Amino acid sequence: MGKALIIGAGGVANVVVHKCCQNPDVFEEICIASRTLAKCDAIKASVANVAGGRTKVETAQLDADNTDMIIDLIKSYKPDIVINVALPYQDLTIMDACLATGVDYLDTANYEPPEIPKFEYKWQWAYREKFEKAGITGLLGSGFDPGVTSIFCAYAQKHYFDEIHYIDILDANAGDHGYHFATNFNPEINIREITAPGSYWENGAWVETEPLEIKKVYNFPELGEKDIYLLHHEEIESLAINIKGVKKIRFWMTFSEKYLTHLRVLENVGMTSIEPIDFEGQKIAPIHFLKAVLPDPASLGPRTKGKTNIGCIIQGIKDGKPRTYYVYNICDHEKCYEEVGSQAISYTTGVPAMIGAMLMLKGIWKKPGVFNVEEFDPDPFMEALNKHGLPWQESFSPTLLDEEL
Amino acid sequence: MGKALIIGAGGVANVVVHKCCQNPDVFEEICIASRTLAKCDAIKASVANVAGGRTKVETAQLDADNTDMIIDLIKSYKPDIVINVALPYQDLTIMDACLATGVDYLDTANYEPPEIPKFEYKWQWAYREKFEKAGITGLLGSGFDPGVTSIFCAYAQKHYFDEIHYIDILDANAGDHGYHFATNFNPEINIREITAPGSYWENGAWVETEPLEIKKVYNFPELGEKDIYLLHHEEIESLAINIKGVKKIRFWMTFSEKYLTHLRVLENVGMTSIEPIDFEGQKIAPIHFLKAVLPDPASLGPRTKGKTNIGCIIQGIKDGKPRTYYVYNICDHEKCYEEVGSQAISYTTGVPAMIGAMLMLKGIWKKPGVFNVEEFDPDPFMEALNKHGLPWQESFSPTLLDEEL
Repeated sequence: MGKALIIGAGGVANVVVHKCCQNPDVFEEICIASRTLAKCDAIKASVANVAGGRTKVETAQLDADNTDMIIDLIKSYKPDIVINVALPYQDLTIMDACLATGVDYLDTANYEPPEIPKFEYKWQWAYREKFEKAGITGLLGSGFDPGVTSIFCAYAQKHYFDEIHYIDILDANAGDHGYHFATNFNPEINIREITAPGSYWENGAWVETEPLEIKKVYNFPELGEKDIYLLHHEEIESLAINIKGVKKIRFWMTFSEKYLTHLRVLENVGMTSIEPIDFEGQKIAPIHFLKAVLPDPASLGPRTKGKTNIGCIIQGIKDGKPRTYYVYNICDHEKCYEEVGSQAISYTTGVPAMIGAMLMLKGIWKKPGVFNVEEFDPDPFMEALNKHGLPWQESFSPTLLDEEL
Repeated sequence: MGKALIIGAGGVANVVVHKCCQNPDVFEEICIASRTLAKCDAIKASVANVAGGRTKVETAQLDADNTDMIIDLIKSYKPDIVINVALPYQDLTIMDACLATGVDYLDTANYEPPEIPKFEYKWQWAYREKFEKAGITGLLGSGFDPGVTSIFCAYAQKHYFDEIHYIDILDANAGDHGYHFATNFNPEINIREITAPGSYWENGAWVETEPLEIKKVYNFPELGEKDIYLLHHEEIESLAINIKGVKKIRFWMTFSEKYLTHLRVLENVGMTSIEPIDFEGQKIAPIHFLKAVLPDPASLGPRTKGKTNIGCIIQGIKDGKPRTYYVYNICDHEKCYEEVGSQAISYTTGVPAMIGAMLMLKGIWKKPGVFNVEEFDPDPFMEALNKHGLPWQESFSPTLLDEEL
């Protein structure tokens, strides 16, 4: 059916490539491109026997910060779609290249300027008119959160509610890698996550909280009781616009007390600082040394046990009566690793990226402009989730987060 | 009256020098000797005006691991006593030099072989006969703990008890330096302290505990409630022999939950390891990098507020009736710093070292052999504590640590 250029060669890219190769009728040819060609080649080698190796896989060296280089690659490879699973800093250079070449675009995380750690869609929404005029589709945030969580809301809106009033997005990771402490990614980003103010949407405006100010305990299906903390998260911004009449949207993430204690102590003693210190005549940033001491994130995959549970509790009105709806996916770290060689954090992001690209290649999710996932018909996506490894469950009588709603 | 050679130029040496200079009739001349001459000269400069500068102060460069070099210095300086406030690893080389030259010896901490972190007197007690034959006095452990805590026991034995059955030594530091975390000394030693098994003496034998296994809360006079943990400590070994009939001796030290959490996290993530890791092509031991990140211990003195309380709760029989006696010293970090430029941790060790040396120079504590402080008459030492900055208080109805005694 089509050709996809996949930019990035990290854990999520690895999942996307595996899932594309599992669907060779749709993804006839793919090219994996990233700064380090060897990483692309390693992923290519790992999918040689997936679905009989029917998808033709190529690799390419690419600097995704360089729009001209991306344009050259698109012109020579001639993909039908570009799947961006590189760094969020590179969303705009890749969108520019898609515009210049007239190729559809998909990503899983919104653009962040490197110097401003703020999740906002404004930079990418600014491309709406340009994409429309170019007749190409830009699909933003087709991962899990953002991504599937917003599709869950659109699905609820379509089938179960006349009005949605409250949305709580709950992201729980009960994975255990057996280390006292390790990070899936840059500890600097983890620190930022717990030290950044939280925020939620209420009655048409943002309400800001102190960092980790709002904590609750929630009893997750299959995972049990976990501490959850209110955070800012990017899908709140688009849902506040696309779910008409919504009064309140909150995002919650699990952090264990142990994890928070470790991060706080490391911050307290200065080990997370990016400010270089003098060490035996050299300048070394403590965070760089800390990264060298901590377990390599790549080593976590094969040893992580347990499950994730990500979903939405939605409250509103149907036929004049109050209704509550909880829709969620449970994903098992070990099963993911067995299937694609990445654990659930990468898996839950990579599968929806593949599904989004599949719907675009098939012409099911396709219209000129730049869109968030909840702006398309959720049904084919929901059906595909069940088919491609992220089955969802639903409940009409879940435990609620608080009484006041 | 006499000349003292003071080996060492750290915080404790600084206190010893100040206190000697405050007593110029006893300490007419002193020499400060250590590996780094500049540190000796800095201490010398700081006491220029103490008591009118009547004590004549000299300095010398000395490698205290080198017995011949110590012998040469003793022969040229001709001290009446050597006050060893260097590292515990150097006790034996200095004792050998004293033996070779016939000069009295005093220290504040027992010898440890660098490779065996175990506090035991056996290496130094092995010098008893040699010191006796040489006609010189070796006084071991004349700091606070060991030191004053044992003198407290000897004083209780002499004046208040027919039989002592139980001794609890309590060392509380309620000092606050205002940092999230800092160590007074090598973090490696702090880690060892909390990860080493504890032990106490009961009915003629050692009872070993898991590290920090036994925790209690004690309401200290002037300091309030603090968490205390049972540790092994060196004075238990000599008190078990010198306090005849004692049934149980325990040592307790305060650690705050915050302090322990910080140490444990740093240990968990590997930052306290002495095993070098590969960092950008270099081998760096994480603990060395951690030391560079943590506040310089020398910076703690001027900013430490609060008090220490170290003492003994002693239980036994007098005139056929049970009796309890609590004797302790309270020391204020800021007042110490104001007086001598070191805080209470160094002050409480340095003052008893000066007092021990004073009693030896005066011939009050003097007999051939090697002795622990509780083997001498405690009265002149107790009197001197009140006079020289470490006044003690007593109570006959203290709160007890536990009911079962």
